[in-house]
Amino acid sequence: MSGIKQPGEKELMLFSGRAHTELAEEVAAHVGVALTPTKLHDFANGEIYARYLESVRGCDAFVIQSHTAPINKWIMEQLIMVDALKRASAKRITVVMPFFGYARQDKKGRGREPITARLMADMFKTAGADRLMSIDLHTSQIQGFFDGPVDHLFAMPVLERYLKDKLDLEHTTIVSPDTGRVRLSERWADTLGTPMAFIHKRRDLDVANQVKVSEVVGKVRGRTCVLIDDMIDTAGTICKAADALYEQGATDVIVAATHAVFSDPAVDRLKNSRISEVIVTNTLPLREEQRFDKLTVLSIAPLIGRAITEVFSDGSVTSLFEGDS
Amino acid sequence: MSGIKQPGEKELMLFSGRAHTELAEEVAAHVGVALTPTKLHDFANGEIYARYLESVRGCDAFVIQSHTAPINKWIMEQLIMVDALKRASAKRITVVMPFFGYARQDKKGRGREPITARLMADMFKTAGADRLMSIDLHTSQIQGFFDGPVDHLFAMPVLERYLKDKLDLEHTTIVSPDTGRVRLSERWADTLGTPMAFIHKRRDLDVANQVKVSEVVGKVRGRTCVLIDDMIDTAGTICKAADALYEQGATDVIVAATHAVFSDPAVDRLKNSRISEVIVTNTLPLREEQRFDKLTVLSIAPLIGRAITEVFSDGSVTSLFEGDS
Amino acid sequence: MSGIKQPGEKELMLFSGRAHTELAEEVAAHVGVALTPTKLHDFANGEIYARYLESVRGCDAFVIQSHTAPINKWIMEQLIMVDALKRASAKRITVVMPFFGYARQDKKGRGREPITARLMADMFKTAGADRLMSIDLHTSQIQGFFDGPVDHLFAMPVLERYLKDKLDLEHTTIVSPDTGRVRLSERWADTLGTPMAFIHKRRDLDVANQVKVSEVVGKVRGRTCVLIDDMIDTAGTICKAADALYEQGATDVIVAATHAVFSDPAVDRLKNSRISEVIVTNTLPLREEQRFDKLTVLSIAPLIGRAITEVFSDGSVTSLFEGDS
Amino acid sequence: MSGIKQPGEKELMLFSGRAHTELAEEVAAHVGVALTPTKLHDFANGEIYARYLESVRGCDAFVIQSHTAPINKWIMEQLIMVDALKRASAKRITVVMPFFGYARQDKKGRGREPITARLMADMFKTAGADRLMSIDLHTSQIQGFFDGPVDHLFAMPVLERYLKDKLDLEHTTIVSPDTGRVRLSERWADTLGTPMAFIHKRRDLDVANQVKVSEVVGKVRGRTCVLIDDMIDTAGTICKAADALYEQGATDVIVAATHAVFSDPAVDRLKNSRISEVIVTNTLPLREEQRFDKLTVLSIAPLIGRAITEVFSDGSVTSLFEGDS
Amino acid sequence: MSGIKQPGEKELMLFSGRAHTELAEEVAAHVGVALTPTKLHDFANGEIYARYLESVRGCDAFVIQSHTAPINKWIMEQLIMVDALKRASAKRITVVMPFFGYARQDKKGRGREPITARLMADMFKTAGADRLMSIDLHTSQIQGFFDGPVDHLFAMPVLERYLKDKLDLEHTTIVSPDTGRVRLSERWADTLGTPMAFIHKRRDLDVANQVKVSEVVGKVRGRTCVLIDDMIDTAGTICKAADALYEQGATDVIVAATHAVFSDPAVDRLKNSRISEVIVTNTLPLREEQRFDKLTVLSIAPLIGRAITEVFSDGSVTSLFEGDS
Amino acid sequence: MSGIKQPGEKELMLFSGRAHTELAEEVAAHVGVALTPTKLHDFANGEIYARYLESVRGCDAFVIQSHTAPINKWIMEQLIMVDALKRASAKRITVVMPFFGYARQDKKGRGREPITARLMADMFKTAGADRLMSIDLHTSQIQGFFDGPVDHLFAMPVLERYLKDKLDLEHTTIVSPDTGRVRLSERWADTLGTPMAFIHKRRDLDVANQVKVSEVVGKVRGRTCVLIDDMIDTAGTICKAADALYEQGATDVIVAATHAVFSDPAVDRLKNSRISEVIVTNTLPLREEQRFDKLTVLSIAPLIGRAITEVFSDGSVTSLFEGDS
Repeated sequence: MSGIKQPGEKELMLFSGRAHTELAEEVAAHVGVALTPTKLHDFANGEIYARYLESVRGCDAFVIQSHTAPINKWIMEQLIMVDALKRASAKRITVVMPFFGYARQDKKGRGREPITARLMADMFKTAGADRLMSIDLHTSQIQGFFDGPVDHLFAMPVLERYLKDKLDLEHTTIVSPDTGRVRLSERWADTLGTPMAFIHKRRDLDVANQVKVSEVVGKVRGRTCVLIDDMIDTAGTICKAADALYEQGATDVIVAATHAVFSDPAVDRLKNSRISEVIVTNTLPLREEQRFDKLTVLSIAPLIGRAITEVFSDGSVTSLFEGDS
Repeated sequence: MSGIKQPGEKELMLFSGRAHTELAEEVAAHVGVALTPTKLHDFANGEIYARYLESVRGCDAFVIQSHTAPINKWIMEQLIMVDALKRASAKRITVVMPFFGYARQDKKGRGREPITARLMADMFKTAGADRLMSIDLHTSQIQGFFDGPVDHLFAMPVLERYLKDKLDLEHTTIVSPDTGRVRLSERWADTLGTPMAFIHKRRDLDVANQVKVSEVVGKVRGRTCVLIDDMIDTAGTICKAADALYEQGATDVIVAATHAVFSDPAVDRLKNSRISEVIVTNTLPLREEQRFDKLTVLSIAPLIGRAITEVFSDGSVTSLFEGDS
Repeated sequence: MSGIKQPGEKELMLFSGRAHTELAEEVAAHVGVALTPTKLHDFANGEIYARYLESVRGCDAFVIQSHTAPINKWIMEQLIMVDALKRASAKRITVVMPFFGYARQDKKGRGREPITARLMADMFKTAGADRLMSIDLHTSQIQGFFDGPVDHLFAMPVLERYLKDKLDLEHTTIVSPDTGRVRLSERWADTLGTPMAFIHKRRDLDVANQVKVSEVVGKVRGRTCVLIDDMIDTAGTICKAADALYEQGATDVIVAATHAVFSDPAVDRLKNSRISEVIVTNTLPLREEQRFDKLTVLSIAPLIGRAITEVFSDGSVTSLFEGDS
Repeated sequence: MSGIKQPGEKELMLFSGRAHTELAEEVAAHVGVALTPTKLHDFANGEIYARYLESVRGCDAFVIQSHTAPINKWIMEQLIMVDALKRASAKRITVVMPFFGYARQDKKGRGREPITARLMADMFKTAGADRLMSIDLHTSQIQGFFDGPVDHLFAMPVLERYLKDKLDLEHTTIVSPDTGRVRLSERWADTLGTPMAFIHKRRDLDVANQVKVSEVVGKVRGRTCVLIDDMIDTAGTICKAADALYEQGATDVIVAATHAVFSDPAVDRLKNSRISEVIVTNTLPLREEQRFDKLTVLSIAPLIGRAITEVFSDGSVTSLFEGDS
Repeated sequence: MSGIKQPGEKELMLFSGRAHTELAEEVAAHVGVALTPTKLHDFANGEIYARYLESVRGCDAFVIQSHTAPINKWIMEQLIMVDALKRASAKRITVVMPFFGYARQDKKGRGREPITARLMADMFKTAGADRLMSIDLHTSQIQGFFDGPVDHLFAMPVLERYLKDKLDLEHTTIVSPDTGRVRLSERWADTLGTPMAFIHKRRDLDVANQVKVSEVVGKVRGRTCVLIDDMIDTAGTICKAADALYEQGATDVIVAATHAVFSDPAVDRLKNSRISEVIVTNTLPLREEQRFDKLTVLSIAPLIGRAITEVFSDGSVTSLFEGDS
Repeated sequence: MSGIKQPGEKELMLFSGRAHTELAEEVAAHVGVALTPTKLHDFANGEIYARYLESVRGCDAFVIQSHTAPINKWIMEQLIMVDALKRASAKRITVVMPFFGYARQDKKGRGREPITARLMADMFKTAGADRLMSIDLHTSQIQGFFDGPVDHLFAMPVLERYLKDKLDLEHTTIVSPDTGRVRLSERWADTLGTPMAFIHKRRDLDVANQVKVSEVVGKVRGRTCVLIDDMIDTAGTICKAADALYEQGATDVIVAATHAVFSDPAVDRLKNSRISEVIVTNTLPLREEQRFDKLTVLSIAPLIGRAITEVFSDGSVTSLFEGDS
């Protein structure tokens, strides 16, 4: 035979964009690697420059970026990082987006709208992504937008573990703040063994982020209500939902959500609301002024770290992903 | 100049598979064309043969097929018809699937499952489809599974027009049979101006089509309940929901759904239930023995016909598609 | 350096659809693995559900399915299985189709026909197949329909080994039942060192599976004739060919074919014919009532098993594939 | 409405590479256009330069090139011409290759061979071809190698019309020079109503263009034999076949083939053979020294011209393509 | 025949993102259309929403956006607009980017860099763009990054017309500010019939936008020097070049460039420099504070308008594009 | 678990086309492998046949071919070799083209030209290439034409090492023979610490390979001039440049270029010129009659060999590629 043989070897490398390096560092610590040194900066006109300072040939690359403000910039940075990995001969590229930007534009709600969530999936594929990893997608169908494997992780166990210690489950009701999250609430209610309720509201499509709370469907009087959502953006819906619950006689309202988007005026609204505690994870970075007394931030890094480790070593990780229906 | 010029022209042609020719004929009548003569038969081993008996060069082709039993066969027939159109130089191919087969497998509910709805969209793309047209997709996100335009039509206006004449809306409640259809029910409740409720149940993933009805969330006592769903498959969920509503004091239960899948034992269950009327459309064919006294079948053909006509002539048809959220 | 290194490893996993599990089990035994436990069932409306019960991350997957009746269902099942493997992060997916469904629709025999064999290859690619393995393709050109490696195995050595023991080659003639198989017969004649002949017939394109036997070209009087074909579907052609040979003075007629499609009324025709023996392989399953006295079924499992083993271990397996021209 | 409307228009433009401009001019005359002026030349190192001297925006382009020696150069020129058309905004590009180069490498005859005919189809697709047009493909399956419409024309009617006037069909036998062309010969025999025969030979795969004639299968004594082939390359096979036929008592041997490849030493062999007439078409150019007395060249230009006209005007042209099986 | 025929028609529609609506309005006026009303806004977290307020079915769409700061946002907006057009059935989509963002990252200057200009081209293709139109690409090779037609327009004639009136060409020298623009300067020198020179400098790759002017190559003493560039970003290079020219005895220095990127501190540098006039076009928007006395802005709208009109009507527009080498 | 595990292994295999086997053999020696035995020959009509004589399953394949005359043939041969590797299950395919054919057609210099360099990249991708390796691309942007990793090697260090020993750098000037190579010359000047100059000429687009030398820009009197280019084709430009330099008082003119294309009449021109030495590499083969006294050929094989070795073993090889800007 004419060739040269060598034993195969695989190497995990972890990369981070500039959006939320704190989370990336924490994940790296859980995985047991250092973030690969990477030069990232903006040119004067805002174009992003990227360059890896170590060889990435043949590596199993994981590129983490939080899709936080300025969101289009950080998405573009991650796309550019993937392109650079592809052209530098990384063997496999996994895009880790703890919060999937544009996930809410996952269908044409009206004629002549884009489906930007699909566009996102396609652009990452085009740039060179082999697989995606994300947490609590706005809708599970987004998995199907990517032409390849998607590791869809669930933060519910993280949040639940925290809540179970605090709550008297006998007097707790899980509440969906609108009709779109009833399914998610049902999963919580199933796991915790509690009843459920939801708020029936209408959203005006022509005015972004404006909502009208209407009636509470289900029994909440005299009960502790846990409002469940995948994300808190401006907190308008969630605060109006809390008001409606107190009006219907709820004794306490707690909020649990995975993604703390916290766009203005979310923090003011939450601080000024009668909500007694807001529990979120750190999939997105929070600035100092976005933190407040009744806010609890749980770390998602152990979950991401474990998922990356298992994906790298071809372990069975269904337990991490289970729970969706 | 060296070329030859001719004025452009476009031609609409309508094709039908063998699954539900009655609907196709009805659609053709509304469009004002004849179905293009097509030879379709099975070879002895079940392989399907297709051939068009007229030239289809340069035409704007619409291929209609209902994804009914035997569902895999009819899907394959439609794929083969698209391939033949592509190779025979049709200019644009629109796949019309009144009911989108495998729409329920639109995400990985558990690890190591397929996302067959995405696979379907990709296979039609591969075969040569330029666009899809479907009615009341199980989830709106399926629009994003296809890499091209999807005309997502809504049967709700058809069903609503019928119901409005019959119901005393003051005493009517719209009910979702499970947590997955609450959003759809909200749209109905919004349009009709009624309150809403839902049934909280659990589905056992390991046993297909088995459900456990649990509690009714919302007020139904003394009211006419309209159970809303996109499809009725074995009717297990819907019949248990009806029972639960009567138990909670509903005075009457009516069912309205777009797709009458009616797999066994749907017909027996519905006939033997206390449901007073079942209203569906003819997106799927019904055999004689699948019809019963309290069943009302409304025709979807005018809607499809109008959509095809508008798509062909580049008209503005957003009104047909509006309503999704 | 910042990454983590691990030695590479590869794992062969074998999966089977429901069409012909007996063959799959036999292949598994030859390879020395167990079939990976897989949940496969039909929903009430005929949609197929698939789920793997073990992790398949990073595996070298071989998915075996026989394209037998109901053929469209089993093809769809195999496509869905491939999609699930892709989304579950299998490293490489080889589709094993002992008999390639729709192989006969490999060209446009007339205008406005599909080329379904190409569509098949493209759909498997779309679903996620990296390579195909098949046996005695109807035409060798089908290899070129797939955009990737195709392992085209030959059953001829299996059949030949059996026949060599039985025949007096001096008095044997290899006969092609029609003009389309003359090339195949030539390969047999070359290997066995016998003369050859063929039957000149016409096929009516408008009536499926109907044939008209005409004249025998070549010398068959006083000789044992071995009719060679890649498949026996309804056995019409082969039985008329046998009659023609006896009419021309053949002393004995034997049939050897790889794929026992055996659509109705193949079994009756063969039983009632003057053919003395029918030799086939088990690429397709045979029900009890499809077996008869003069039928000999040779197992193809050792061939498939060896091919899978060699493909997995990057061995040189050209000897298995050689022989096509 | 905000846009500007104009009536649609389409324009046929015909382009020719440098391989066989005589044929292209003749086709242009039949279509009724002038060839679009095109600059084509070789740079000093053999790289080809192409530029169209008129605007081709929005045109329906037909690019004709004969795949003759130096074959790789002319194929590359046609690919480059397609790329230039795509980038210059031609609306639709049809590649006209009267003889499809590399058609004989349409499968892996042995392990580790290419399937160059598929590669050809893919490269033209990559360059920008929307459709192919070719005549008498070596195997009909090659239609399936291209991902789009293929217009497969047949020269048989052209050759037949000429032969019918000359032959006494009662005493004529159609003969296939090897086992690979028996199917083609059958089509001739069917149309002319004559018996058929074939030559059984073996080809040595390791030595290109070398053949060993063996026995004649079928009756030829006292008959006029018409040897049928899709192409004549070195004429080795065909001349040995003619010898074998005369040895078996044929009274006359005529050869009819579509593609006159005429590689050395074809012309010498044919001139020195006992073949009485060789009938071919002008799909490939013949140099003066490749012409000889008993050679008859029929023009294929009317057929190509009519096909182009019909494709442009979306006419029904199945009659031109019919006949393949 | 079974179909319905209608005469073909085509409709030009023009769309604008929010980056530089003034230019888009001006282009629309030249084309003679109104910009199609489009809803574009940012959600609270920065995600962009897009919706067209008129039907775009079947239209020939031109989508104009200037890639100015915040550049990643405006690029993403244009991508999303293209996706929405594709899904709303526009027939053909031309992306008009007067300045091509990331054009300078058109190669790997060092290992492990991205090629973001190619990524840009691929992302627009993925989103649904059929063709691109841009002005004075940083390098002409970028045309080859897009898989489809690129209309590459030249602003040189616009700038030249203005300069010819002002300059005494006998005493003018065209100067390239660095070695990368020598080719461009040569084109100017050829057209104006003047001598040329260039500045030899070194750029520090590790520090963005920093340059070191070194020597002037060519004769500039006693002459009016016109510094030519495709863009002015921070104006560092151009101002140092001007200084070097004055040091070498130039009597006057004028700057002509197509794209006024004008990142900080470009305006201050130019104002404070000894450059007597800066001539640019309005491919990018200039805020009030970016304008200054010696700045002349020429409109590019007539050029874009004419190109769009010609592309729509399939006219010959090579004259607009000529000049590149 | 049900599968079989094996340790991973990778195998480097090196393949060579017929264009320049001498270089391939030299590279193989540096890598420490034998060229894999491969059957390559022309059929009578010029079609190329390829077959590997050893198993290539799972190998890391490097296919080397010099794009020399007849250039279209050798490009096609390399494409066919790639196709055969893909279909024979090579794991990764790297195309090594020391000189990238058609690199000069890297943009549309005028309307309706092809961009053949992009077409080349796409065709190799289509055939199955995973990555490209080339030396001194005509423009660095060509890296971006390939959708995957490109290893762009630089011969400058090889040439420089040789020159440094010979030259008195104090009296040396680096000269670009035209405006297109000024950037390249700057890199040389930077490295050697010398001044630079260039020749300003015009190229007539309508007449291939014809140039008009005009003025020298920069100081060359009394200095040794080193003319730098990426390739020498007909040597017209370079010889006129040398004449111009001598006319301006240069004391000596040396030429250094990577690719010795040496089309007629390059050798005569160089021999008859006053150039004192011509230094090139062996990326392209030179026939005996193309060698002459003042020609120095340096071997590029060590560079290619080292690059292949590093790519195979995932080493860090940026040092080999650095230097481009």
